[in-house]
Amino acid sequence: MKSTIYYGPHDVRVEERPIPTIKNPGDLIIRVVRTCVCGSDLWPYRSQDANSAGTPIGHESIGVVTEIGADVTAAKPGDFVIVPFPISCGECAACKAGFESSCLNGGYFGGAESEGCQSEYLHVPHADGTVVNVSEALAAGDIPGAPASPKDFTDEMLSDLLTLSDVMGTGYHAAVSAEVKPGYTAVVFGDGAVGLCGVLSAKLLGATRIIAMSRHEDRAAIAREFGATDIVPERDDAAVARVMELTGSGADAVLECVGSAQSFNTALRVGRPGAVIGRVGLPHGVQIPADATFYRNIGIKGGPAPVRTYARQRLLREVLAGNIHPGRVFTKTYALDEVPQAYADMDARRVIKALVKVSEVEG
Amino acid sequence: MKSTIYYGPHDVRVEERPIPTIKNPGDLIIRVVRTCVCGSDLWPYRSQDANSAGTPIGHESIGVVTEIGADVTAAKPGDFVIVPFPISCGECAACKAGFESSCLNGGYFGGAESEGCQSEYLHVPHADGTVVNVSEALAAGDIPGAPASPKDFTDEMLSDLLTLSDVMGTGYHAAVSAEVKPGYTAVVFGDGAVGLCGVLSAKLLGATRIIAMSRHEDRAAIAREFGATDIVPERDDAAVARVMELTGSGADAVLECVGSAQSFNTALRVGRPGAVIGRVGLPHGVQIPADATFYRNIGIKGGPAPVRTYARQRLLREVLAGNIHPGRVFTKTYALDEVPQAYADMDARRVIKALVKVSEVEG
Repeated sequence: MKSTIYYGPHDVRVEERPIPTIKNPGDLIIRVVRTCVCGSDLWPYRSQDANSAGTPIGHESIGVVTEIGADVTAAKPGDFVIVPFPISCGECAACKAGFESSCLNGGYFGGAESEGCQSEYLHVPHADGTVVNVSEALAAGDIPGAPASPKDFTDEMLSDLLTLSDVMGTGYHAAVSAEVKPGYTAVVFGDGAVGLCGVLSAKLLGATRIIAMSRHEDRAAIAREFGATDIVPERDDAAVARVMELTGSGADAVLECVGSAQSFNTALRVGRPGAVIGRVGLPHGVQIPADATFYRNIGIKGGPAPVRTYARQRLLREVLAGNIHPGRVFTKTYALDEVPQAYADMDARRVIKALVKVSEVEG
Repeated sequence: MKSTIYYGPHDVRVEERPIPTIKNPGDLIIRVVRTCVCGSDLWPYRSQDANSAGTPIGHESIGVVTEIGADVTAAKPGDFVIVPFPISCGECAACKAGFESSCLNGGYFGGAESEGCQSEYLHVPHADGTVVNVSEALAAGDIPGAPASPKDFTDEMLSDLLTLSDVMGTGYHAAVSAEVKPGYTAVVFGDGAVGLCGVLSAKLLGATRIIAMSRHEDRAAIAREFGATDIVPERDDAAVARVMELTGSGADAVLECVGSAQSFNTALRVGRPGAVIGRVGLPHGVQIPADATFYRNIGIKGGPAPVRTYARQRLLREVLAGNIHPGRVFTKTYALDEVPQAYADMDARRVIKALVKVSEVEG
């Protein structure tokens, strides 16, 4: 099969690898239907994070189960599933508390110890704790407006579903962590796919004013479509001044979807006392001042998003019912062979998020 | 009147000062009935914080209103009130959001710019946003078991009410910030009055297992009375190991009621993934690691406690109904002239919290 392998800065290659097989009775294998490139894949691509040459890459996928281990009960061959970016055992304290993205026995796809999702097939360990079974959700028949079966999925629906493997669940984690409530004003840092999904999530949770920090017109346009009421292109002091001008004394909730020191430092300054910063951007050089946050009662919450929990709680129904279209963050579609170009285009900000069409639902 | 003034390390004095008068139409004056010494007063007393010589000290009091400014509607002369430690305007974004302890126009009692509570009378600015009117709560007549009027308050009730000016509300803020929920296991750092009130608060919020970190038998006894199920005397690595032994993979909620680097660093390590550290100890040398907290989805929330909000939401009713007795943290009673001895006794840990009897409800 074809699989994407990371070799070094600006060097990812699609290579021939063996089709994966069941290794443990809790595993399953999927034929990948759609995958994509993540903003966080760009950290090693830009060599801001260390990855070894020869490491599989990619952690977002949806597809059809081809084979299951003897112990798997979460899905059967032929089922359409979402494979969230975290591998989670389903049994530990983290998984039981709904934080399976910090599983004590798991890991993440696309790394030295797991396979990458930018491939034709994917080996999924701990299947019962990891996958979201879409076929099963449809079979329950209680979602108004949902397609009858996965073979009826449009390209748009497939894109929307794919975002539940990471970016939509991650944006939602930013909003939940920031404790967005109805009537709130929220500020969203990051106009990449996650930040845009953060805007959509703040809207879902009832924010009535949503300030998106963006200086790219294509991204700002999607932010507005997702519910942003104000676009702020300024950075640093000027950004703080602008948010204060818009809000009076700071926003009720702050979503930090970048992870850079610059973004985080600005995020720390735009919330009103008692605001919580919901952070989902992988931290790079971030410092959290213990005193300044204390006296203003500023909370810091977040981390890798428990996207499976959110999909099962709410987001899968919202997507299947056609209520939200987070797949709008995909602005260009590539074939699997074209993944290196997809990276280059995302790196250069020519596309917001690159969709990779690997196969169709029926093969 | 007599008033306690800070002069330097281990030097507080009770001196004669003029009885305060109304300065602005929003002010009121109380005759202090009870006040006390706070663990946070010990920071300057031990010269770990800088306070100028000649600064009034003390920020916890209850008493009877003697005079009000023309604009005050929250209380009238003769009313019995709690004066929380924060001065809060009641109008800003912080106050409106229920975080009046981070008021944008306020401050705290016992400092260079306000009067101290360890006095016979106290000047209260921003009275409408600051005081909790106990007489008014009683007059509503809907609290089962409550005394008919303040003149019926026992010494025990007065002690319980006094804790609502700071320590009980602060312990409650730790528990609320740590997001304690029914059935949770909570770990409480700090066996001073605030930590003990944190134990009581975790119990109020439904925690079923409460681990109190304490190595002092007198404090551990009160912790048990307040709901602690386990006492852990260890510190640092040994404390982490013990909590892990008791909980399996860490506690669901962590209350940090000390503020030292040692306590905070241990607190960071004893929560399960997704746990929130509710911190109320004034930070002294605390560092918050941005990466380690991120990958484990550890939240950090808290700050100066909005004790007025909590008193009005729930705690005043619980005290007036006799459901809780946070005043048990007072282990010795002093006259106002004896305040220097009260500091010395708290500093030496001879008492947990020093109560100061200034006058009686009826004068």
